[in-house]
Amino acid sequence: MSVAEYIKHNRLFFDGAMGTMLQKSGLEPGGLPEVYNIEKPETVLEIHKEYVKAGADVITANTFQANELKLSDCGYSVEEIITAGVQLAKKSGAKFSALDIGPLGQLMEPMGTLSFDDAYEMFKRQLVAGEKAGADIVLFETMSDLLEVKAGILAARENTNLPVFVTMTFQEDGRTFVGCDPKSVAVTLSGLGVDALGVNCSLGPKELLPTIDELIKYSRVPVMVQPNAGLPHIENDKTVYNILAEDFSNFMKKIAEKGVSVIGGCCGTTPEFIKETRNLVEAVEFFSPEYEHVTAVSSGTKTVIFDNAVTVIGERINPTGKKKLKEKLRQQDFGYLVSEAISQMHNSADVLDVNCGLPEINEAETLAKTVSEIQAAVNLPLQLDSSDKNAVEAGIRKYNGKPIINSVNGKQESMDAIFPIAKKYGAVVVGLCLDETGIPETAEGRYKIAEKIVRTAETYGIPKEDIIIDCLVLTASAQQKLVIETINAIKLVKERLGVKTVLGVSNVSFGLPARPILNSVFLAAGFGAGLDSAIVNPMSFDIMKTVRGFKVLNNQDVDAVDYISNYADYVSETGSGKDSAGKVSDNTNAAKGTNEDI
Amino acid sequence: MSVAEYIKHNRLFFDGAMGTMLQKSGLEPGGLPEVYNIEKPETVLEIHKEYVKAGADVITANTFQANELKLSDCGYSVEEIITAGVQLAKKSGAKFSALDIGPLGQLMEPMGTLSFDDAYEMFKRQLVAGEKAGADIVLFETMSDLLEVKAGILAARENTNLPVFVTMTFQEDGRTFVGCDPKSVAVTLSGLGVDALGVNCSLGPKELLPTIDELIKYSRVPVMVQPNAGLPHIENDKTVYNILAEDFSNFMKKIAEKGVSVIGGCCGTTPEFIKETRNLVEAVEFFSPEYEHVTAVSSGTKTVIFDNAVTVIGERINPTGKKKLKEKLRQQDFGYLVSEAISQMHNSADVLDVNCGLPEINEAETLAKTVSEIQAAVNLPLQLDSSDKNAVEAGIRKYNGKPIINSVNGKQESMDAIFPIAKKYGAVVVGLCLDETGIPETAEGRYKIAEKIVRTAETYGIPKEDIIIDCLVLTASAQQKLVIETINAIKLVKERLGVKTVLGVSNVSFGLPARPILNSVFLAAGFGAGLDSAIVNPMSFDIMKTVRGFKVLNNQDVDAVDYISNYADYVSETGSGKDSAGKVSDNTNAAKGTNEDI
Ligand SMILES: [Zn+2]
Ligand SMILES: [Zn+2]
Ligand SMILES: [Zn+2]
Repeated sequence: MSVAEYIKHNRLFFDGAMGTMLQKSGLEPGGLPEVYNIEKPETVLEIHKEYVKAGADVITANTFQANELKLSDCGYSVEEIITAGVQLAKKSGAKFSALDIGPLGQLMEPMGTLSFDDAYEMFKRQLVAGEKAGADIVLFETMSDLLEVKAGILAARENTNLPVFVTMTFQEDGRTFVGCDPKSVAVTLSGLGVDALGVNCSLGPKELLPTIDELIKYSRVPVMVQPNAGLPHIENDKTVYNILAEDFSNFMKKIAEKGVSVIGGCCGTTPEFIKETRNLVEAVEFFSPEYEHVTAVSSGTKTVIFDNAVTVIGERINPTGKKKLKEKLRQQDFGYLVSEAISQMHNSADVLDVNCGLPEINEAETLAKTVSEIQAAVNLPLQLDSSDKNAVEAGIRKYNGKPIINSVNGKQESMDAIFPIAKKYGAVVVGLCLDETGIPETAEGRYKIAEKIVRTAETYGIPKEDIIIDCLVLTASAQQKLVIETINAIKLVKERLGVKTVLGVSNVSFGLPARPILNSVFLAAGFGAGLDSAIVNPMSFDIMKTVRGFKVLNNQDVDAVDYISNYADYVSETGSGKDSAGKVSDNTNAAKGTNEDI
Repeated sequence: MSVAEYIKHNRLFFDGAMGTMLQKSGLEPGGLPEVYNIEKPETVLEIHKEYVKAGADVITANTFQANELKLSDCGYSVEEIITAGVQLAKKSGAKFSALDIGPLGQLMEPMGTLSFDDAYEMFKRQLVAGEKAGADIVLFETMSDLLEVKAGILAARENTNLPVFVTMTFQEDGRTFVGCDPKSVAVTLSGLGVDALGVNCSLGPKELLPTIDELIKYSRVPVMVQPNAGLPHIENDKTVYNILAEDFSNFMKKIAEKGVSVIGGCCGTTPEFIKETRNLVEAVEFFSPEYEHVTAVSSGTKTVIFDNAVTVIGERINPTGKKKLKEKLRQQDFGYLVSEAISQMHNSADVLDVNCGLPEINEAETLAKTVSEIQAAVNLPLQLDSSDKNAVEAGIRKYNGKPIINSVNGKQESMDAIFPIAKKYGAVVVGLCLDETGIPETAEGRYKIAEKIVRTAETYGIPKEDIIIDCLVLTASAQQKLVIETINAIKLVKERLGVKTVLGVSNVSFGLPARPILNSVFLAAGFGAGLDSAIVNPMSFDIMKTVRGFKVLNNQDVDAVDYISNYADYVSETGSGKDSAGKVSDNTNAAKGTNEDI
């Protein structure tokens, strides 16, 4: 049985700290522990054996820093260090050996200088060597940047068959060094299809409990936890940790009881910690905790959950009908796009749609570049808006987080092009209710396509919570009779499929005057029918007052705090149409909340 | 078997004209034919017998004008003429005899001088005499005012056990002399529980076909048709009709095939017409046509059907929180109320709520008076808004048409007080989703009460299409979590009960700023959930733009004609809240329907 399969049905025990043990054996602080694999192999092997004796199923090879940046001055190659390290782990007699990979040690672009492609290549070198040496697992650990991790995961998937475990390290504020929160970690890494995800190092087991709760709630794969031996302090010039094996194992028992499948220790833990933990945890019956089947998308640092809430997807980064944006895209001048992103964020957008489709530019390259530029400036999840498979893949490959892909439709070729990308990289996909025969006139016809999309996604291993259905709007000026079918279709999709829905509303008013009225009434009617999200212009007063108003009504804007801060001074327009000139005072009273004489 | 029961399963043939026959027998034009009952009984009896021989099941007594106004100078009392007339009809050997009652001959108040109570008393005198003389049926015929008919129906129901048949006479424009249309006739008379309703006189059978179609579509009781022998013209100083018995009977066959149950002739028809008609129609198999189970309310001249359409119920005639209206009610100065009614009508209200509940006035008297005054000025159906049984009955008794009663709730005592009134007079009733325990928090709880109200109404003989459910709004400022339950409850009520729904939206925003925004978003969300009607302020710009916008979206305002005429010059407010100062130009473009650079 593969390790990936094993942990779905069994608890798996990792070992504890290597660095702590090597320092006890004489490694001077600041020295490169990985060199011991070649220069003092017995020391390393002895520690491995102690952990096996203590009950570890998996021995983590001494390869944490064995990447070309960190090893550059040590005289050994990545392959030499990793081969020796994995061989020692295997020699320990453990059930499984893990290639250990830590952060590369440089910040990723655009914050730092490390490019995604360079990170990918460095990880690839480690991974290929580790697999060749016979590792059973790769463990990316002590990671703090999801984008760096993504480069590692893709390198593993595309160059090896190693099961991939990932643990990240969180600070006391509940975020990693670059700001990732547990929700975004769980959502993004689950999307990328890792075999286990979780937390290591960071803090002691007690302090990690809230983080672990979040990970269990949102992870679709087994959760892994390797805490430190409590919080560190300095004693006689040495870093020591503040809890003992007994306390540690008691907390680890609690953690196992929450449903954590993979357990071990990090800094400050010793074979004694692992032994006591295994003793206590062995009595806790294994189970797979049920995660929340939510529709969730994320950037590296922010997750948006489509859950009894209204989600605003900003539509403005789309050249269709926008002269200036077209020009900027042609010039590859991304400043304007970024400024549009920032404006929308400040106007309560939750997600930003990004469309770079212009015939005269390379859509794939431009979309990838735009995604990077926007992600450097705003932390909102993005919706990659293209029907071109290559553009979608270029956009998603270096995207930090779990994006939305907009869109597939009911045509088999559309789904066959996009679903494999969505599955590989992890994405929520918008499914449009149209197929070879166009947009069905009836709600029932559109529901049928929605059902087909959801069922087809499932055959690709994409769960229905990763599909958002767009029932599609027709224009009232051209097809007035069919407009209400969209509202009816939303009800059918919600009732029968229970998936989330999205709508771009502005087409409804095309060709009519007073478009903001129709758009906002249609939007509110959609919300009433069960619409979960809308692709709209967050700069539109009418749209946003509809959104903010509905957020009061659905208890999303609790105590109407945001609503009041936006509209406390709102005064209604006057008159109710052509017949009512002169009714000013009445409406003004109404607008001010007066009940007398209105 | 009673005649009322008989016509549910069998076609019933009435006789033809009496006046035409009497004129042939020497009655001078302008003479009172009813005097013949006493002075020339053999002539009358001979005509009756000819009709029986021709195949008439029912002989209509020669009592059309036998009321105290018309008989005042003839030397005989109402009782004498009617007793003689009915006895002659019975003597004819027909299966059934009908007391015949025509219009009293004066216009009703407020157009004319005849009071409802006087009309009632005159009809009562005829009815009591007719029943005493042995009539099997009362036929009110050639009527043109529904309010006058209502006085007659109530007089019949409250003083006799006679089955009540009513036929009205329509002009070439499809309306009666005072403006009643076939829809309002069918809706109002069905509500009043007559045993048959229809059309007589007016025109020939061919010209009546569209009117008959309307009556069949909306009547819940068997339909009766007695046309003239075509259109009249003057020949040798005499009125003659333009079709022969053969044509007449051919059209009557068509009319029978539509499902008309009660058939006969009016002016210009003779025993020959009846004979040929019976011969032809006998071959048409009897059936009860399926009527449209719509929720319909009416004034005397206008019907509003709650059918895939949004209905606006104007809320302004209600003293709650309105100083001026309170004052006017105390002074019994109805001019202001009437002006409010007119303003609301001009601002697209479909129905007007009328509430006269003030502790210091007699609510019942005031409501009855207000109803009369408003009905004299506007032709919209009214919603009588009171929970006081006596006020409701006072308001509905002299109401012209079929009103809404607002409201009952889920308490047994409330339903036991109101449903008998609704059943007797014919009304649609608003059912509030609250009971002894208050307003249930959940949608499911409110649905349960709605179901109880509908089931209880059915035990009173009130069909579910005469119930409109109000799922009730809670205020977002006090019970924010429960606001969305109203929207959810509407969906449940629509899906599971299939009844119409209504909502008064303005409470939702009580205690918050920018109330028009919340009210209109809530209203549109309600429409999206399936809300059919709303009790709102038609003078509110925000509310009416929501209503008019939704009427475009649901194809009610076809080609957006009304929308465009109201909002062609609409310019959106600027900014999308506190963050968006300076976005003026964008929004202006959006408002104008421009697609470039928005
Ligand atoms: Zn550590
Ligand atoms: Zn029967
Ligand atoms: Zn006639």
